[in-house]
Amino acid sequence: MAKSPFPLNAWYAAAYDVELGTSLLARRICNLAMVFFRRRDGRVAALEDACWHRLLPLSLGRLEGDELVCGYHGLVFNSDGRCTHMPSQETINPSACVRAFPVAEKHRFVWVWPGDPLAADPALIPDLHWNDDPAWAGDGKMIGVKCDYRLVIDNLMDLTHETFVHGSSIGNRAVAEAPFVTTHGDRMATVTRWMEGIEAPPFWAGQIRDVHGYEGLVDRWQIIRFEAPCTVTIDVGVAVAGSGAQPAGDKPGDRSRGVNGQVLNTITPETDTSCHYFWAFARNYRLQEQRLTHQLREGVSRIFREDETVLEAQQRAIDEHPEREFNNLSIDAGAMWARRLIDRLQARESPDPARRPVIAVRTVT
Amino acid sequence: MAKSPFPLNAWYAAAYDVELGTSLLARRICNLAMVFFRRRDGRVAALEDACWHRLLPLSLGRLEGDELVCGYHGLVFNSDGRCTHMPSQETINPSACVRAFPVAEKHRFVWVWPGDPLAADPALIPDLHWNDDPAWAGDGKMIGVKCDYRLVIDNLMDLTHETFVHGSSIGNRAVAEAPFVTTHGDRMATVTRWMEGIEAPPFWAGQIRDVHGYEGLVDRWQIIRFEAPCTVTIDVGVAVAGSGAQPAGDKPGDRSRGVNGQVLNTITPETDTSCHYFWAFARNYRLQEQRLTHQLREGVSRIFREDETVLEAQQRAIDEHPEREFNNLSIDAGAMWARRLIDRLQARESPDPARRPVIAVRTVT
Amino acid sequence: MAKSPFPLNAWYAAAYDVELGTSLLARRICNLAMVFFRRRDGRVAALEDACWHRLLPLSLGRLEGDELVCGYHGLVFNSDGRCTHMPSQETINPSACVRAFPVAEKHRFVWVWPGDPLAADPALIPDLHWNDDPAWAGDGKMIGVKCDYRLVIDNLMDLTHETFVHGSSIGNRAVAEAPFVTTHGDRMATVTRWMEGIEAPPFWAGQIRDVHGYEGLVDRWQIIRFEAPCTVTIDVGVAVAGSGAQPAGDKPGDRSRGVNGQVLNTITPETDTSCHYFWAFARNYRLQEQRLTHQLREGVSRIFREDETVLEAQQRAIDEHPEREFNNLSIDAGAMWARRLIDRLQARESPDPARRPVIAVRTVT
Repeated sequence: MAKSPFPLNAWYAAAYDVELGTSLLARRICNLAMVFFRRRDGRVAALEDACWHRLLPLSLGRLEGDELVCGYHGLVFNSDGRCTHMPSQETINPSACVRAFPVAEKHRFVWVWPGDPLAADPALIPDLHWNDDPAWAGDGKMIGVKCDYRLVIDNLMDLTHETFVHGSSIGNRAVAEAPFVTTHGDRMATVTRWMEGIEAPPFWAGQIRDVHGYEGLVDRWQIIRFEAPCTVTIDVGVAVAGSGAQPAGDKPGDRSRGVNGQVLNTITPETDTSCHYFWAFARNYRLQEQRLTHQLREGVSRIFREDETVLEAQQRAIDEHPEREFNNLSIDAGAMWARRLIDRLQARESPDPARRPVIAVRTVT
Repeated sequence: MAKSPFPLNAWYAAAYDVELGTSLLARRICNLAMVFFRRRDGRVAALEDACWHRLLPLSLGRLEGDELVCGYHGLVFNSDGRCTHMPSQETINPSACVRAFPVAEKHRFVWVWPGDPLAADPALIPDLHWNDDPAWAGDGKMIGVKCDYRLVIDNLMDLTHETFVHGSSIGNRAVAEAPFVTTHGDRMATVTRWMEGIEAPPFWAGQIRDVHGYEGLVDRWQIIRFEAPCTVTIDVGVAVAGSGAQPAGDKPGDRSRGVNGQVLNTITPETDTSCHYFWAFARNYRLQEQRLTHQLREGVSRIFREDETVLEAQQRAIDEHPEREFNNLSIDAGAMWARRLIDRLQARESPDPARRPVIAVRTVT
Repeated sequence: MAKSPFPLNAWYAAAYDVELGTSLLARRICNLAMVFFRRRDGRVAALEDACWHRLLPLSLGRLEGDELVCGYHGLVFNSDGRCTHMPSQETINPSACVRAFPVAEKHRFVWVWPGDPLAADPALIPDLHWNDDPAWAGDGKMIGVKCDYRLVIDNLMDLTHETFVHGSSIGNRAVAEAPFVTTHGDRMATVTRWMEGIEAPPFWAGQIRDVHGYEGLVDRWQIIRFEAPCTVTIDVGVAVAGSGAQPAGDKPGDRSRGVNGQVLNTITPETDTSCHYFWAFARNYRLQEQRLTHQLREGVSRIFREDETVLEAQQRAIDEHPEREFNNLSIDAGAMWARRLIDRLQARESPDPARRPVIAVRTVT
C-alpha cells in the first residue's frame, strides 16, 4: 500500500474544545480510530478506540471516573491506556494496554499527536491565537470533507478560485488577475496579494459600509500563511482606497480605515481521502455583536459548502484517474510550496533513506 | 486489469439529439468521463470531462459561447479541447489541452467515437434510419442498466426469452418453439423467425385488430439484425395468416395485410458492467396518432423494465461467480455470432498479436 | 484468498421449517447461493441458485410441480438439479445440471450440507430436540448479523458479557465474578457456571416469582454446550437457594423448586463476515401460556439486539485492523475450545497436510 499522504509526527486538531464534555468522542485521525474523553481534572485523554481483548471500540463502553470500561466484557483502562481490571481474574496481564496519544488543548482546539510520543513538543502546535484573543471575535465549525486534506490546502493557498467558485459573494475578476508574492521558510509558506483601488466584492462592501459608512473603491488584501502540515490562516480585509493599509518598505500598513478578518483553517486527515476541516472566522471590529458573529459564521459556512462540492468532485476525479498528475500554473506557487513542506515532514519520518531530504535541498529553503 | 469488453474504434450513441441544448451534459462512455455541449453553429462537441489543471470535471463549469470555463480556477477550453485562457498568466502552456472526441449526429442520436480519431469514418455509423424517416412514426427512451452491454445484446439476439420474461404481453409458447435461421457477415448477424398460423400475442392482437379489424390467426415475424459492436434492430410484426407476408424464394413478402414495427436498440457501454441503453419503437401505420405513439412507448418501456430486472440479476450472478462460463444452447446461435463479431473488432485493436484474428478464421465468415 | 472460516462438511440450519411453503426461498449459505423449495411429497430440495445456461438465479423463476423453471429462457431442472427441458431443442445436453445439496429436516429446522454429499450423515445433525419436544414450549427467530459466525459463538461461550451488554435484564456482577468449569470432547465443549445464593437478575426474578411465588435468593446456573461447528445450547435457570438444584458427585440436581430454560442457538455462515443466526428459547413450565411464549420471544429478541450492536461493531473493528489478533482472558476458555474444535473440522478438509491435525494433538482431546 502506498504511504499515507500525511506525517504522523505533527499536532492535528481533533475537536473543538466544547465537543469534549463528559461523554466519549470517537474520531478517526490519520487512519487511527481514537476515543477522546475529558478527565475530572479537565485534561483530555486520547486512547486507541479498540479494546485490547476483542477489539470492540472502547467508545461503545462508558466512562467511570477517569477510566474507560469496555462495553463488552468490562475490561477497564485508565487514561494512560493501561488495563486496571479484567473480569473473573485476579491478575492482570502486564501487556494489557491500549495506545495512548499525546493531547494538548490550545486556541480552542484539542490537538492530538498520532506519531512518536517522545517527539510531541507543545511548541509545535500551530498558531491560531486569534481564536481566543479578546481583541478578536468569531466562531467556526467543523465539517467533514470527502477528500485528501491536501486538496483543501491547495484550495486555500490560491484564492483565484474565489472568482469562479464564489462569484456571488467574495470573488471577482480582481482576485484572478491580481499579482501575488510567495515566500517560504522551513515550515511556513506565504502568498500575499494586494489589490489596490478596486471595487469591493459584495461581502466586504457590506462590512466596510457598516463599520466606516464608506461605499467607494478599496484596497484589498489577502495574506495567506501556511504552517506545515495542515494549518492555513488568511489575513483578509479591505480599507478605504489609498488610506495606506499596505506596508511600504519598513513602514507598516495603517489599517485604521479598514475592516480586517482572519480566516483560520486547520485540516486534519481522517483517512487518505477524507478529512475533518476545522475553520473559524475572527474579526477585530464590532466585537460584542453576537448577531454579526452568527451572520458571519453562516455566511462563511455557505462559501465553504461551495468549496466542498468542488473538492469532493476533484477527489472522485483523482480516484478515477489514478495515473493522472496535476499540472501547475503560476497561481499554484503557494500550493506547490505547501506540498513540498509536507513532503519534507514526511521524508523525515521515512524509513527509506532514498526518501529523506538531502542536505543540499534543505539548504535551499 | 482485464481488457474492457468493448472496442474503442466504433461509434457509440452518447445521447438523444434533444438532450443537447445549451447546457453541459456529463456522460461516461466506455469508461471515459466525457462532457458534451452544442456549439452556436449547432454542432455537438465532446471533451474529456477533467480539467487539464486539477482534474475537476469541466461539466461543473459553464459554457461561454463555444468555450468551456472550468468551475474551479477558470481555465478556458475551446471545442477542440485546446486551452485558450489561464488565470493570472499571459502565456499559455502549449501542452494545455483536454482530449476531444469525434462526434456525429444521425438518426436522432449524437454519436461519439472514443478511439483513434483518424479512424472515425461517419460511414460506420449504424443504420437506424427508421428513427427519422417520415414513413415511420415512433419514440424512445434511454435507460441505464447495471450490466455489461453484451448481456443486453444476448437478450435481444434470442427472443425465446419473451415466453418466460414477457409472458403477459408479447411472449407465448410459439416463440420458444419456432425454428429460426441465422446468417452473418463481417459486421452483421441476423436471426430470422417466422411463426405461421399462430394465435397473436396480446400486444399484436390489439394492433392488427385496430388497423385491419382482424381477429384471427396470424403469421408472425421477428427479423433480428445485429450490427457490431452494439446495435440491434428488430423487424417485427404480424399479418393475416396465409396473406403472403413471408418472402418465398425470390418473391418478396407482401405485408399489406399486416402491422409492422421496428425495435431500434443501441447499447453504449458506460463502464465494464453498466450501459446506456437507447431504444425506440417505430411503426409504419397510423402515423399521426400521438396517443398511439405515447401508448406504444410506455408499453415497450414496461417490457424493457422486465428485461432490466433479469439483466441486472444476471450481472450480479456473473460478478459472484467469476470462474463460471456461460453454456450455450441452439437458441444462442445469434448471440454467439454477435459476440464473435465484437471479439473480432476488439482483436483488431489489440496490441497483442496472439489476440488478432488469423486469416484462416476471417475467411470463414 | 484466505480460506473461509467454516468447514463445508457439516449440517447448517438453512431455514425454519415454516419458511418453506410453496414458494422459492433464496438464501446464501457458506458463500454459496442456494435456492430452497418444498416438493409435493413434503421433502425440501436445495439447488445451486444459478441457471446452468446463463447464471440467472433460479429463484427468479418459478416452481412447476417438483421442478424449477428458469425465469429467463425456460430451462427446467428437477429437484436433483438435472435439466429436463431446454427451449427449442429436442436433445438435452447431458452435462446440463446444477448442483444439488443434501437436505434434512429436524427439530424445526431445515438443514443443508454444503460439502461432500457422500459424507452427509444425518446422525451429525446437532441436537436441538427441545425445539419440538412436547415437554418444552418456546419460539424463536432468525436474524441476520453482519459478522463472522464465530464472533457469535465467542459471545455465547462466555456469558460474562451479560453484565456489561445486558445489565438491564439478565446480567449482574454475579455472572462476571462466578467461577466456571470447562470440559471438552471431540466435537463438544461445555462451560458450567453455578452462582449460589445470589440475588436473581430481573428476568429470572420475575419467572420464579410467577411459577413458585418465591422472591428470595436463588441458585443460578448456566450450562453452555457447544457442538461444532456452530451450535450452542445453554441450559439456564434459577432455583430456590439451597434447594439442591446443583448436582453433587453422583447425585443429580433437583430442579423441582426452580425454573428452567434452554437457549438454542445455531449460527450459519452466510459469507465470511455475515451469518444467519437462528435461535429459540424453550421453557419447561407454564407450557400452554401463549402470552408468555410471545413475551419471552420478544424479551430474548431485545437482548439479542444488544449483542448484535456489539458483534457488528466488533466485525468492523476486525476489518479495520486486519493485522491485530485477539488477546485471551481466563473467561475465554470455552470460546478457545470452540475455535479449536472448528479448526480441527476444517483441518480435516484441508488439502494441505500441514494444516491437518497430528495424532498427538488429537490424543489430547
